[in-house]
Amino acid sequence: MAKVSAGVGPQFPQVVILFGATGDLARRKLLPGLFHLSSAGFIPGCRIIAVALDDIHVDDFRRSAREALDEFSSRKVAQPEWDTFAANLDYLPLTAGAEALKAAVLNAELSFNGECRRLHYLSVPPNAALSAVGMLKEAGLVERSRIIMEKPFGTDLASSVSLNARLHEVFEEEQIFRIDHFLGKEPAQNILAFRFANGLFEPIWNRNFIDHVQIDVPETLGLGKRAGFYEQTGAFRDMVVTHLFQILAFMAMEPPTSLEPSPISEEKNKVFRSMLPIQPTDVVRGQYTGYRSEDGVSPESETETFIALKCSIDNWRWAGVPFYLRTGKRLAEGQRIISIAFREPPKSMFPAGSGVGSQGPDHLTFDLADASKMSLSFYGKRPGPGMRLDKLSLQFAMRDTGLIGEVLEAYERLILDAMRGDRTLFTTAEGIERLWEVSTALLESPPPVRFYAPGSWGPNAIHQLVAPRAWRLPFERAWRDPNALGS
Amino acid sequence: MAKVSAGVGPQFPQVVILFGATGDLARRKLLPGLFHLSSAGFIPGCRIIAVALDDIHVDDFRRSAREALDEFSSRKVAQPEWDTFAANLDYLPLTAGAEALKAAVLNAELSFNGECRRLHYLSVPPNAALSAVGMLKEAGLVERSRIIMEKPFGTDLASSVSLNARLHEVFEEEQIFRIDHFLGKEPAQNILAFRFANGLFEPIWNRNFIDHVQIDVPETLGLGKRAGFYEQTGAFRDMVVTHLFQILAFMAMEPPTSLEPSPISEEKNKVFRSMLPIQPTDVVRGQYTGYRSEDGVSPESETETFIALKCSIDNWRWAGVPFYLRTGKRLAEGQRIISIAFREPPKSMFPAGSGVGSQGPDHLTFDLADASKMSLSFYGKRPGPGMRLDKLSLQFAMRDTGLIGEVLEAYERLILDAMRGDRTLFTTAEGIERLWEVSTALLESPPPVRFYAPGSWGPNAIHQLVAPRAWRLPFERAWRDPNALGS
Repeated sequence: MAKVSAGVGPQFPQVVILFGATGDLARRKLLPGLFHLSSAGFIPGCRIIAVALDDIHVDDFRRSAREALDEFSSRKVAQPEWDTFAANLDYLPLTAGAEALKAAVLNAELSFNGECRRLHYLSVPPNAALSAVGMLKEAGLVERSRIIMEKPFGTDLASSVSLNARLHEVFEEEQIFRIDHFLGKEPAQNILAFRFANGLFEPIWNRNFIDHVQIDVPETLGLGKRAGFYEQTGAFRDMVVTHLFQILAFMAMEPPTSLEPSPISEEKNKVFRSMLPIQPTDVVRGQYTGYRSEDGVSPESETETFIALKCSIDNWRWAGVPFYLRTGKRLAEGQRIISIAFREPPKSMFPAGSGVGSQGPDHLTFDLADASKMSLSFYGKRPGPGMRLDKLSLQFAMRDTGLIGEVLEAYERLILDAMRGDRTLFTTAEGIERLWEVSTALLESPPPVRFYAPGSWGPNAIHQLVAPRAWRLPFERAWRDPNALGS
Repeated sequence: MAKVSAGVGPQFPQVVILFGATGDLARRKLLPGLFHLSSAGFIPGCRIIAVALDDIHVDDFRRSAREALDEFSSRKVAQPEWDTFAANLDYLPLTAGAEALKAAVLNAELSFNGECRRLHYLSVPPNAALSAVGMLKEAGLVERSRIIMEKPFGTDLASSVSLNARLHEVFEEEQIFRIDHFLGKEPAQNILAFRFANGLFEPIWNRNFIDHVQIDVPETLGLGKRAGFYEQTGAFRDMVVTHLFQILAFMAMEPPTSLEPSPISEEKNKVFRSMLPIQPTDVVRGQYTGYRSEDGVSPESETETFIALKCSIDNWRWAGVPFYLRTGKRLAEGQRIISIAFREPPKSMFPAGSGVGSQGPDHLTFDLADASKMSLSFYGKRPGPGMRLDKLSLQFAMRDTGLIGEVLEAYERLILDAMRGDRTLFTTAEGIERLWEVSTALLESPPPVRFYAPGSWGPNAIHQLVAPRAWRLPFERAWRDPNALGS
């Protein structure tokens, strides 16, 4: 595996301090991910100190970790690799305190002769995270360290400012990695490559040629067992202010001075600075019928399980080009699509009835599925006599290329980036605070939720939001196959 | 079939006077084509007066025409349709003279009450065509008529000027349809639709974003039995000055004021006017080894069976963008490709070794095969950690769309256009004369032929012609599959 990992892993061995080590995320993603990164040779050395509230012996933790791997790892766990991993896996109850943690870390570092870095992974809620940060300070484990934070990064401007201020009392901003697993998949970097490795797209990537952009992430799933969390959060905080705005920034940013983390972060932050405050009148909040009867949900809940909104980026490139975002639970399809609608040609020289524009605008579409897909639709001539135009489509599917070898899972990818200090796919304090800032009016005066039927595309009001434009889904299905719309 | 033909056929019934009716082209293409257009309802009425040197009875001609249809028609010939067609098929030996021709035409027109148009199809060599034109004048059959001419439209500037002058003594330029079956296929109109029905390509369709264009039409076939013709003609006159320059004009033209024949012809002629004279030093002439031993070929022949050349269009849109054209006999593959190479991004922000540019420039490719194909190549991110770029490709194949219904063959399409008076796909006198004019230096001082092996891609000198650029074929095959190049 040395070949795969060459140049993509960190230079130094890593001591990982994993807070929340017995939690759901640790079991499902983090322990399997760390196991894979270690055993596949991506990291020149890795010792893990698992920390959690449970007062258990290290052997119990190892046994439980092994069970987690067997249940959740997408790859088979070989015994020799497991033995090595387990030998480097320590456990410490949180109650053991800062001194014990320090001793465990220093002991782990002995095997690397001190030539190593520390990665604190805080897989715990915000309050517990701040306690952990305090413990790390007390234990003197701040230097040579990076820290991964899980969302939420606040719930509004004031709370995010406060959270960041308390983090910054201990860690430099450059040490803090706010993780967004949505960006750990391929699409964000695909967008960078597509836009900046090619000479032909950037010239039309602006208000002169683009009519609007849609970022559409409908989900078919409902709440699962997350009612307690979701009731307090809703679709906007859960999805938009985190994932969708980040994708928007990669689409809208200016070319960075280089493809390094800091210039990219700076360009993303410039996009956020240029975003106009979101107007509640530009937002449709929805709630699927039946939500209020679910376990743990208030019968009068005003939490949105669906949101669609218009964003405006008020700069030279994008002024006047609406960015429409949509996401929600229990919708008709699960999709992750970015869709760029181009303007129509300035002059239609085709005869009436030839079909130009009858099937919507030309679109460049990024399908953010795991194996990425793209398409570029255009009007072309239907074979045969006369000039009849149909909407045709150039298509690309990564799956057809034979290039998909071993792809890292989202968390693996992001952990590796944090170990290397690559902040490209992470959010800065400035960025997250600005996003809460533009969201303030909406959070203070949210429009009432409108109901929608599970399996639909959301409340009817979403059509007025984009009119005279149309949502790409399911409109495009409709002209491709009139029966595809269903009821 | 009424649905297919609605609006694409001529308004008036047609009397077709077919000179050269017993010749090879008539048997292979024109009679089968006229049969299909008549029987499928594309023409509201059609009577044919076949004319040739043979002194045969009309029944003999009909029998021979039926044999031609059975042998060459791509569709099955149903008896009832044949009976109707045969009843409208007359034959007149050329020796019967102008008066007899006039009588036959007037007789045919009786059945249409004079509400019809005449189409003279001159499927004969240039000298015989001029005789036929004289006969049509003598017979008074010029009015209400259009005339289709087959190439060659001269062999140099002087001969084309002389030919056009003699044609214009009898027919107005608007009545003359110089046919180029290469344009009767879908691609020329596909290019118009692609460029002008979409808002996103025209902005990058110029010297700022395009590095060069290749029009590449290699053929695997040799001479067949055309040695006598080919020895006098060669690849430049046979292919370039006719077909390839026409394709070039559709690629390079400015948007016409409307998609009507006359504005399109005018824009094509503007391209020809802006073409710089072809420099013999920008031309590679080739001859495959073994050509001089073929039947009917001089053992010292200097006729080129291959040509590659650079054209320059000296206008605001294209100055500095070379158009490379290549065609020839007995080459490695049969292809008809237009390939637009885009410039590289002005600044590569990707790290060295990431692969940008390593596999040639981004290309937009039109494959002019019968069922058209297109592709748009770009550099995209290889899945996995790190930023490794590969050349990927968005692809379109008309065959996958389900839109290919009944497609007219090239000659059918062009005959129908001529009957409708649509000159979009035909060449004007001005255009053809200008093309001979820019070819004068090459025709007067052709570089010596260089030999190439049958099955190769032409003489080695073609690489210097495009350096530091590369011919798309077989270079692209090479990076897609290092073994595909062969020896």
